[in-house]
Amino acid sequence: MTTIPESHRDLLDAQVATLATIGGDGYPQQSVLWFLAEDDVVKVSLNSARQKVKNLERNPSCSLLILDPANPNRYLEIRGDAEIAADPSYVFANRVGAKYGVDLRSMDQAGETRVVVTLRPRRVRTWG
Amino acid sequence: MTTIPESHRDLLDAQVATLATIGGDGYPQQSVLWFLAEDDVVKVSLNSARQKVKNLERNPSCSLLILDPANPNRYLEIRGDAEIAADPSYVFANRVGAKYGVDLRSMDQAGETRVVVTLRPRRVRTWG
Repeated sequence: MTTIPESHRDLLDAQVATLATIGGDGYPQQSVLWFLAEDDVVKVSLNSARQKVKNLERNPSCSLLILDPANPNRYLEIRGDAEIAADPSYVFANRVGAKYGVDLRSMDQAGETRVVVTLRPRRVRTWG
Repeated sequence: MTTIPESHRDLLDAQVATLATIGGDGYPQQSVLWFLAEDDVVKVSLNSARQKVKNLERNPSCSLLILDPANPNRYLEIRGDAEIAADPSYVFANRVGAKYGVDLRSMDQAGETRVVVTLRPRRVRTWG
């Protein structure tokens, strides 16, 4: 299964997801982040200075997990490859900001840039 | 930092954690699971038939993340190595069961066995 089933599509409206990447030392790393689903495609806006961006540039293999905040026995996991594109004008970052009511520029330092990370699913797995 | 700081020790009482392992195809995999912290050491009781146990037997590198259920901007991540030990008599599984008010034997099929996975930290990271 590489598409998100109707049974768990509501989780695409959740506030946070957990992203697992692989570090330079070969160990998995996880962090919690904001995301936006557009036409069932999960995308993330990241400051390119972040370790997870460096990890994905080196190795695009990743997993994103969205837990149902109301039910810890229900979740959606998307395994796949991260496609990274520059977002110098904050076009995508502003769409993420609209979801969260935050201007993402206010979270970055002068001279920092943003990328859009689009998750291309190889496997979608649901639980609960 | 390889110990859990006082500031985030409360998260060891949370109900669930997200575990990231590396699959045979090299991709990270995540799942949500129950855990028990004993003397600040995080341990998990797993049915040995599960994919994540197979992954950890092949490659013990893993990451465990505990999100504050009351604050999605606050979490604890432990990166390290999984040490796997047999738990044929459900000694550890019963301690986990006591935390959750569930008999873990009731979740397993006849002939299945349990292992204790102890997480040996290489790096502890906190956020929020």
